[in-house]
Amino acid sequence: MNIFPLVAVGVSTLNSSNDLLDVRYHLILNEDQELLNTLNIDNPGFNSLYSMASGEENNEFFESISNTLSVTSRQKLIFHKIDKDVPISNICDAYLKLYLLSLKVSKPNSINLENIFGSLANVAWTNLGPVDVKDLNLFRSRNGEVFVRSVDKFPCLTDYIIPEGVRIADSSRVRLGAHLSEGTTVMHEGFVNFNAGTLGSAMIEGRISAGVIIGKNSDLGGGCSTMGTLSGGNEVKISVGEDCLLGANSGLGIPLGNRCILEAGLYLTGGSKVEILNSKNEMIETVKASTLSGKDDLLFIRNSLTGAIQCKPNGKSVVLNETLHKND
Amino acid sequence: MNIFPLVAVGVSTLNSSNDLLDVRYHLILNEDQELLNTLNIDNPGFNSLYSMASGEENNEFFESISNTLSVTSRQKLIFHKIDKDVPISNICDAYLKLYLLSLKVSKPNSINLENIFGSLANVAWTNLGPVDVKDLNLFRSRNGEVFVRSVDKFPCLTDYIIPEGVRIADSSRVRLGAHLSEGTTVMHEGFVNFNAGTLGSAMIEGRISAGVIIGKNSDLGGGCSTMGTLSGGNEVKISVGEDCLLGANSGLGIPLGNRCILEAGLYLTGGSKVEILNSKNEMIETVKASTLSGKDDLLFIRNSLTGAIQCKPNGKSVVLNETLHKND
Amino acid sequence: MNIFPLVAVGVSTLNSSNDLLDVRYHLILNEDQELLNTLNIDNPGFNSLYSMASGEENNEFFESISNTLSVTSRQKLIFHKIDKDVPISNICDAYLKLYLLSLKVSKPNSINLENIFGSLANVAWTNLGPVDVKDLNLFRSRNGEVFVRSVDKFPCLTDYIIPEGVRIADSSRVRLGAHLSEGTTVMHEGFVNFNAGTLGSAMIEGRISAGVIIGKNSDLGGGCSTMGTLSGGNEVKISVGEDCLLGANSGLGIPLGNRCILEAGLYLTGGSKVEILNSKNEMIETVKASTLSGKDDLLFIRNSLTGAIQCKPNGKSVVLNETLHKND
Repeated sequence: MNIFPLVAVGVSTLNSSNDLLDVRYHLILNEDQELLNTLNIDNPGFNSLYSMASGEENNEFFESISNTLSVTSRQKLIFHKIDKDVPISNICDAYLKLYLLSLKVSKPNSINLENIFGSLANVAWTNLGPVDVKDLNLFRSRNGEVFVRSVDKFPCLTDYIIPEGVRIADSSRVRLGAHLSEGTTVMHEGFVNFNAGTLGSAMIEGRISAGVIIGKNSDLGGGCSTMGTLSGGNEVKISVGEDCLLGANSGLGIPLGNRCILEAGLYLTGGSKVEILNSKNEMIETVKASTLSGKDDLLFIRNSLTGAIQCKPNGKSVVLNETLHKND
Repeated sequence: MNIFPLVAVGVSTLNSSNDLLDVRYHLILNEDQELLNTLNIDNPGFNSLYSMASGEENNEFFESISNTLSVTSRQKLIFHKIDKDVPISNICDAYLKLYLLSLKVSKPNSINLENIFGSLANVAWTNLGPVDVKDLNLFRSRNGEVFVRSVDKFPCLTDYIIPEGVRIADSSRVRLGAHLSEGTTVMHEGFVNFNAGTLGSAMIEGRISAGVIIGKNSDLGGGCSTMGTLSGGNEVKISVGEDCLLGANSGLGIPLGNRCILEAGLYLTGGSKVEILNSKNEMIETVKASTLSGKDDLLFIRNSLTGAIQCKPNGKSVVLNETLHKND
Repeated sequence: MNIFPLVAVGVSTLNSSNDLLDVRYHLILNEDQELLNTLNIDNPGFNSLYSMASGEENNEFFESISNTLSVTSRQKLIFHKIDKDVPISNICDAYLKLYLLSLKVSKPNSINLENIFGSLANVAWTNLGPVDVKDLNLFRSRNGEVFVRSVDKFPCLTDYIIPEGVRIADSSRVRLGAHLSEGTTVMHEGFVNFNAGTLGSAMIEGRISAGVIIGKNSDLGGGCSTMGTLSGGNEVKISVGEDCLLGANSGLGIPLGNRCILEAGLYLTGGSKVEILNSKNEMIETVKASTLSGKDDLLFIRNSLTGAIQCKPNGKSVVLNETLHKND
């Protein structure tokens, strides 16, 4: 689905040199044609960093929006347009694409995020909002103690948007750009990177790396790992199908189909050799794990006597505990 | 020990529709018979959600308690009585039982917590107290930036009670309802769920799941996992005896006796087959791990040449580093 | 390099009994001889806990420094001198040595930290600064809601100093006393204890225990463990050379040389027996892992069919993703 061109309204916090530190978007304007006309977005000059030139501060229209969005003196109102889904070229692009992911307008891996690291500023995220690391001492001397939650290019999701029907036990561990579906619980040991997330109810006590998608009704056990593609050299996008269970402290290096189980403590990489057993526990053949990518109904264990990684048909089905997922 | 009936005084924060978001209890009143008479708790109507009806705000007695507890305009004074240890029926029950666990009046698994998920509200826990997720935008526009630590049904222990002689390196990772004994240190990678905890000095760098109890002088290494009973299908309550060591990144799926060691990186599930060796390293038999539940003086390793999980008599004793545990 | 004697200026927050809770140092004064003369540091009485006696509050010189450092009414200006690198004898020593480590004046394991646990106070670290756990209720009744990030002897690095060119995704997980070099990114699952850190660019998604040093251009995968020497009984200091990769959920119990790889999910302890293979995958001998300490170009895996830990020559080189490390 092509969602571009698209215009959004947001508020950016500035550092002491008036550089943008972030953009907190509030509205997508594609529907409001009257407003789009007012903004004159068809003017080829519109897609600049932000359209609110200093002369416009007296404009009644902008002023009323600024009031609604509670724009403070260290902030600026932003109107930003993305015409086409090309690589990210500035911080307004970057935050808008992260916002679209967390708003669930876009699915992970469906929009172009190239150059996102180069477009984001490294910011001290505090209880008083984003602060440039260089400004922090000055900021503290003016505002008293400041709590620094993070020094990072990406902010936490909950500072920007809290999706409905979701629990996030430690909000430091979910980045803006995470795609969390209703009924998702991210426990304390869970983690969700940007451009990653869940497609339905899910219990997340492990780490969802950038680019990784988890199907509905799946359960990632405490401390489990999913291989990402940003670092580590892995080139295959990892995903988990529906009704799957990754045991505690396990790890996944191939895409899984539906109704698969990975035993607690087992790290399955794409290159692992795996013994294939039939339902009578007879060994049939030995294959590389990557050849099992995307197949349904598999149970992966390490035989506790021979040490071999084995794969057999999965008879059990995973049932999420419903009371844990009614997040209202 | 039957501690009920029991009356407690607390303060609840309300959302914009006057629903209770939490209850921060301050006192257990069982001893103070005069006060109990004043409250008329034998009146069968007492055990309602909260006794302070609107007309009572001018009551001098309630007013003085409100002042002592610094009750603000978005809060309400609560007197709550639990008659018998039956399933939880409302948020006041739920917070009182969590409080009793963290106050160490009740041990984990000793009180009825049925229906706790259904009785708790999903709340945004902020540096300005609990806020209904639906009220957050309004709350921000009134109070400026707000730091959201968590969006969850359970709050952090340290917002309610800080047990004596305890260190908690990252307070986001210990829920109200955790039972932490003096001399317990929960490091950054440690985690303690509600209805779980320690019975004496302990070094916790791994995860204590709901229902799991750790004996005194035991050490849970970094990132280790203990299987819980809330999700994952395990039905046996896991526990760790005294003087035990769970190595870093290990995992435990059976109850352990005293003086047991689980090697770093080894995940022992109840169904794992285990080779039993004698003190001369001779193999005696092969058993399911669950048959070793609760036995003392065992060392579990994975043989690094054969890949087999093995169990032998544990000669070494675990000694906690005392300087790390004097938490004064 | 001997950096002592050395004088530093800082600010300490006090509890309600006027005990020091911490010291936030701002300047090392060794260069400023004029100031040192003013302070009369050669006076044998100087090295007391702090030099600013009550009578000196009217001293113009001290007052101007107090203003610069925004010393509040619950704080005190501190001048502290360490003459020689002997065991820590008080909280001013302790914080100064932690500061020197994080300022990268001292490398981990290069200064005497004996008695540091006994010298530090267990403090509630809040968004309004350090508070004595015993004062917390009083403090809350005066200041309203207070966010407690941690109850610990060590504070978070970012409350004291933010090194240049560093990202720390969850600041709760890096203690003051961590030594983070430019180009280091500590992700959400990363952790860095005091007296530990990196010597160059590094991607840290695992745990750097006290005493552990990571060489430049190395990558610690999500949830990986490095054995520390504080607890657990290990006596060998663990380190990681340059251009190394520790896979996700792996663990390291020996010092590694350069260009080594530890497979995801593999825990290598010093006592593990390891099969040595040549570049043709032929088994040569079996050795204890500790005999491989510090050797370069090794790849450690667990054979997924035999369960044996194996070591072979490492052909691949690890290349950090540069865009993730430009932390400006």
